[in-house]
Amino acid sequence: MSKQIRLGIVGATGYVGLEMVRLLAGRQDIRLSTLVSRSFAGQLFSDVYPAFCKIVDLPLQALDPAQLAADCDIVVTALPHGTSGQVVPGLLDLGLRVLDHSGDFRYKDQAVYEKDYKIKHPRPSLLQESVYGLPELYRAKIKAARLVANPGCYPTCSLLALKPLLAEKLVNPASLIIDAVSGVSGAGRKADVNFSFTETAEGFKAYGVTGHRHTSEIEQECARLAGLDQPLPISFTPHLAPLKRGMLATVYADLATGAGQEQLQAAYKKHYAAEWFVRLLPEGSLPDTRFVAGTNFADISVHHDTRTGRVKVLCAIDNLGKGAAAQAVQSLNLMAGLPENIGLYLPGLAV
Amino acid sequence: MSKQIRLGIVGATGYVGLEMVRLLAGRQDIRLSTLVSRSFAGQLFSDVYPAFCKIVDLPLQALDPAQLAADCDIVVTALPHGTSGQVVPGLLDLGLRVLDHSGDFRYKDQAVYEKDYKIKHPRPSLLQESVYGLPELYRAKIKAARLVANPGCYPTCSLLALKPLLAEKLVNPASLIIDAVSGVSGAGRKADVNFSFTETAEGFKAYGVTGHRHTSEIEQECARLAGLDQPLPISFTPHLAPLKRGMLATVYADLATGAGQEQLQAAYKKHYAAEWFVRLLPEGSLPDTRFVAGTNFADISVHHDTRTGRVKVLCAIDNLGKGAAAQAVQSLNLMAGLPENIGLYLPGLAV
Amino acid sequence: MSKQIRLGIVGATGYVGLEMVRLLAGRQDIRLSTLVSRSFAGQLFSDVYPAFCKIVDLPLQALDPAQLAADCDIVVTALPHGTSGQVVPGLLDLGLRVLDHSGDFRYKDQAVYEKDYKIKHPRPSLLQESVYGLPELYRAKIKAARLVANPGCYPTCSLLALKPLLAEKLVNPASLIIDAVSGVSGAGRKADVNFSFTETAEGFKAYGVTGHRHTSEIEQECARLAGLDQPLPISFTPHLAPLKRGMLATVYADLATGAGQEQLQAAYKKHYAAEWFVRLLPEGSLPDTRFVAGTNFADISVHHDTRTGRVKVLCAIDNLGKGAAAQAVQSLNLMAGLPENIGLYLPGLAV
Amino acid sequence: MSKQIRLGIVGATGYVGLEMVRLLAGRQDIRLSTLVSRSFAGQLFSDVYPAFCKIVDLPLQALDPAQLAADCDIVVTALPHGTSGQVVPGLLDLGLRVLDHSGDFRYKDQAVYEKDYKIKHPRPSLLQESVYGLPELYRAKIKAARLVANPGCYPTCSLLALKPLLAEKLVNPASLIIDAVSGVSGAGRKADVNFSFTETAEGFKAYGVTGHRHTSEIEQECARLAGLDQPLPISFTPHLAPLKRGMLATVYADLATGAGQEQLQAAYKKHYAAEWFVRLLPEGSLPDTRFVAGTNFADISVHHDTRTGRVKVLCAIDNLGKGAAAQAVQSLNLMAGLPENIGLYLPGLAV
Repeated sequence: MSKQIRLGIVGATGYVGLEMVRLLAGRQDIRLSTLVSRSFAGQLFSDVYPAFCKIVDLPLQALDPAQLAADCDIVVTALPHGTSGQVVPGLLDLGLRVLDHSGDFRYKDQAVYEKDYKIKHPRPSLLQESVYGLPELYRAKIKAARLVANPGCYPTCSLLALKPLLAEKLVNPASLIIDAVSGVSGAGRKADVNFSFTETAEGFKAYGVTGHRHTSEIEQECARLAGLDQPLPISFTPHLAPLKRGMLATVYADLATGAGQEQLQAAYKKHYAAEWFVRLLPEGSLPDTRFVAGTNFADISVHHDTRTGRVKVLCAIDNLGKGAAAQAVQSLNLMAGLPENIGLYLPGLAV
Repeated sequence: MSKQIRLGIVGATGYVGLEMVRLLAGRQDIRLSTLVSRSFAGQLFSDVYPAFCKIVDLPLQALDPAQLAADCDIVVTALPHGTSGQVVPGLLDLGLRVLDHSGDFRYKDQAVYEKDYKIKHPRPSLLQESVYGLPELYRAKIKAARLVANPGCYPTCSLLALKPLLAEKLVNPASLIIDAVSGVSGAGRKADVNFSFTETAEGFKAYGVTGHRHTSEIEQECARLAGLDQPLPISFTPHLAPLKRGMLATVYADLATGAGQEQLQAAYKKHYAAEWFVRLLPEGSLPDTRFVAGTNFADISVHHDTRTGRVKVLCAIDNLGKGAAAQAVQSLNLMAGLPENIGLYLPGLAV
Repeated sequence: MSKQIRLGIVGATGYVGLEMVRLLAGRQDIRLSTLVSRSFAGQLFSDVYPAFCKIVDLPLQALDPAQLAADCDIVVTALPHGTSGQVVPGLLDLGLRVLDHSGDFRYKDQAVYEKDYKIKHPRPSLLQESVYGLPELYRAKIKAARLVANPGCYPTCSLLALKPLLAEKLVNPASLIIDAVSGVSGAGRKADVNFSFTETAEGFKAYGVTGHRHTSEIEQECARLAGLDQPLPISFTPHLAPLKRGMLATVYADLATGAGQEQLQAAYKKHYAAEWFVRLLPEGSLPDTRFVAGTNFADISVHHDTRTGRVKVLCAIDNLGKGAAAQAVQSLNLMAGLPENIGLYLPGLAV
Repeated sequence: MSKQIRLGIVGATGYVGLEMVRLLAGRQDIRLSTLVSRSFAGQLFSDVYPAFCKIVDLPLQALDPAQLAADCDIVVTALPHGTSGQVVPGLLDLGLRVLDHSGDFRYKDQAVYEKDYKIKHPRPSLLQESVYGLPELYRAKIKAARLVANPGCYPTCSLLALKPLLAEKLVNPASLIIDAVSGVSGAGRKADVNFSFTETAEGFKAYGVTGHRHTSEIEQECARLAGLDQPLPISFTPHLAPLKRGMLATVYADLATGAGQEQLQAAYKKHYAAEWFVRLLPEGSLPDTRFVAGTNFADISVHHDTRTGRVKVLCAIDNLGKGAAAQAVQSLNLMAGLPENIGLYLPGLAV
């Protein structure tokens, strides 16, 4: 497919928008056509992020759906929950394809969404049409989708860790415990003393201990992977660590079978040997968020704990990378009929 | 008790020794009498740590048990595992009381120690005599002890989180999962590129995923708290976060009874209302390692997850504080017949 | 002097107020009597800073000058520039002694203040009465003062570095260049994306390059030290580094005489040998902000650069310590007739 | 020029080697042919740096000059000072072109090198042939060079800041003061407790205050820029900040003429408008190391301080980027006859 895709990004100056601009800056096959920013309309992207001087000096514009429809083939919406729900239907109605970063189109069950997000869904019919944008689960559907709902960072990290266990029925789905840690950029770009350097550096804490919204998103997809009719409740605890980028999930589950390390390793190989962006680590190696920062990789290790009869799985991603913007680029590549890893063939900074 | 206690510290220039010196620097009731450092003998403590100029300019000496016996009432040994086992018996034989920081005297079962530490124990009879130095569990015994084995940082953090659950038989002990995170000072003072700034900052990772030695130490004390004959295997996963000081344990367990938030909160109040150094947080509050850095406090919150029928407990300590040196000072206060919180009546830096 | 001093702090929940509370928490001779916070009145201090639970659970109150006059002997005002100028005169009129942290009472020349702060001074007569609260310069006056103006952090750090050079006429005052770096807590407690963890960590930058207000404050005191009639313009450049606490000034000056390293070292010894809080480092040692974090120490080294005929002086302080709250405690000790270093006999955390 | 350049890197697992591998990983015009690492020969590059799994899985080899000559067109040496001097002449003798990262070939005056590096130079004749690899100064020579000596990080940062001032004779060269700050990666990959996370985070300090070797390198090139016969002594003070990557120089000089902001800005425009990698910031903007991390950009601002008659210039680079590996790639592009900014058309991570 040789046609150049013209891309618009709505919410271009938040961290997810920023990271998409960074990853797409040098691309010719997907061209940054329109950058929309409510807060900074009229300025250049490089005024807001001087790191991009000479690289991306595009103007920031106010939201104008008709103009987006005229100038773009696909639009990425990186907007707060609730706002996406208001904006996306109109873009679709104008004939655009949309990749949305919010939680507004990730759910199949309207009631679960409305309970967790405390918002009446403005266009429930789209919940059935939208495709959950985790290519390792829904690659074929993403290619053809009109609306892709990019997954949350915690769900991405957790589901990649869990897919082989659930699909191969190696564990008891009722026993799942997900303990996860995020870097601070996951909180987004906001003026908030709780995320100030002085009150974040040298701290480590949990949050949303019994009610984080990503829980139901994880449960929805776990049920599907396990072939269950109804989502099972999962224990999920997010934490905040003093790093900018990075996410690590440590997943615990009771083994349902007599599977040992060899079978576990084999199951992960079966599911991920052909996946470019999932790196199954050799036995004895452990993921580190540093190894995936700035990239679309998910590094995974699986461990049979013979003493307890449990399995532990570790999965590291960049919360802004595979957890948000880089995964979105992966899906855009699919939507555009391009090879999946174009523009993502990057090692992280490493140091 | 008005007699001044003369204290020796063997291994004074490691981080645990350093932190003990910091906490005891201004004390008159317990006086720093002798500082021993193999690596820096002949220099001043303040040569090694210029932060202590004018505060602690004491000379560092080579290890000389006879001189320690002449000059000290109690000796603290902050030595590597195995080395303590060689040094401590001789100090006891000379009539000294000893508080040891290594794993060499924490175990009741010689076989478990020798399996996990891969060391033949040099004086097994001391395993029965030594007192596990967690005052919230063994206060009375510590007061009279000749040998106190200061607990590991992860065990301290985990056991304080678990004590009410196990003692009150609120959970199934076979279901315990402990996911914990430590600051980098926990690795000790060493030249190692794996703990360099450049390869540690902006990283987060697990380690010792199926074989960390603190696991068996936690299991020994959990069994005792639960009134079990034999330790039950526990899932424990330590992680490293880019902060200097701080430890957070996130503990998961299946509730064995119909206990809800109210009963859980009541159980923790029962066990900790009289404990100065355990701060049970009000409902809705969550511990942060920042709040306990530099102190002997353990901040705990307990959460009934009604969806899963599990309980989550969070416990934050300073790995060098309640996890090592400050807890040692608490035990020294007890050994000296002093009020437990002398010299530890400190808030952390907060920012 | 055995009378207990009752102290009020207005602005107790900013970082300077916080640090004063931390340093005074255990004191009996100076007792925290009243904590005033506009933003958090009605809450406990430990609600805002959970690190202080069980240590300082005092209520936060609205500003009520009459009640302060009834309950306090001395009041500390830690308020924004301009606000102090409004509040302090009324407190003095009620008979209180005041130590103020703002720039409002640091200047002798009303015109310089009004130009730099863009505020009409509300009570110019106090500019002559107020004492610049740098004990190493104005110890005797501070003891008797009704109003002490605590110096800025950069001026404290710079003036301690410069005092021997200027007082001994070792350098050409027209050649002074001060290049200084501050930790992020110097920006105060505020919700500002420019000081967020994500946009501060891994960054280093200058600010206020040609117009920082501390410049004129430094110039005022340098002129006095050098015995000049008029302040000479000084080059001053502040920078922001990704650490919470700490300040380092690197000072450059042309030597006016043939003084070499020996004479320079002797001049610093002459001025600082008797100063408890100024630690002149031995030749070959260099200050590190880590060594003074959490303390009232200023660590200084002086270096003759034979190649250029210049002298370099390095001075490290904690911007919240000797640069603000700890220096204020030093002055309070003096105002109260107490030994100067009570409550400040502390090493930093070191690690 | 369409021929593919085969590149060898000797010292591929140090941080400079690592960064070159990162920047060249996706290149076809310059192909990574041979990676040499003494410490890790026999392993894969991605074993040492797991971030590169699937991206650069090349084997690491022992040093074999003959094989390098057979397999490479150009060899990059990223070796310690002194070691390069031993290795490079042999590579040249085998017909290879070499880009060297050490100080061994940066000097024109053998005596200055031997005094500062305390090494007898093994092949002084190469000092005249080698080209100082700062493309903004020596572009034409680099294109044709057989041996390029990549500049030090501090010299790169300082010289880019100073070039217009010296070339246009706007300042008194005897008045130059360079105050500079580096991130920790500048110390290289080594096991050293002084660069451990625990003893580096939250610290800021100067080092090499009167004797850093980069001083004479800066002086050599400043003299040339100013058209002086002899280098003039310059005040230079390096500092260490707790960030991984980044360098900021703050340069002070006495204006020699009546030049004001307008003329200064014009001089910088004249020298840098055509330079892709030097970004002259608009008035009012200030460089931040965050904006250049991971890139080859140098961000510069110039400030007339009317009060003192001095000029201040700020220059931010990535010490591993424009300060080392990215600048080397820029020179390699020139040596290969390629456009200068190929493979360097990158924004930094920004967050």
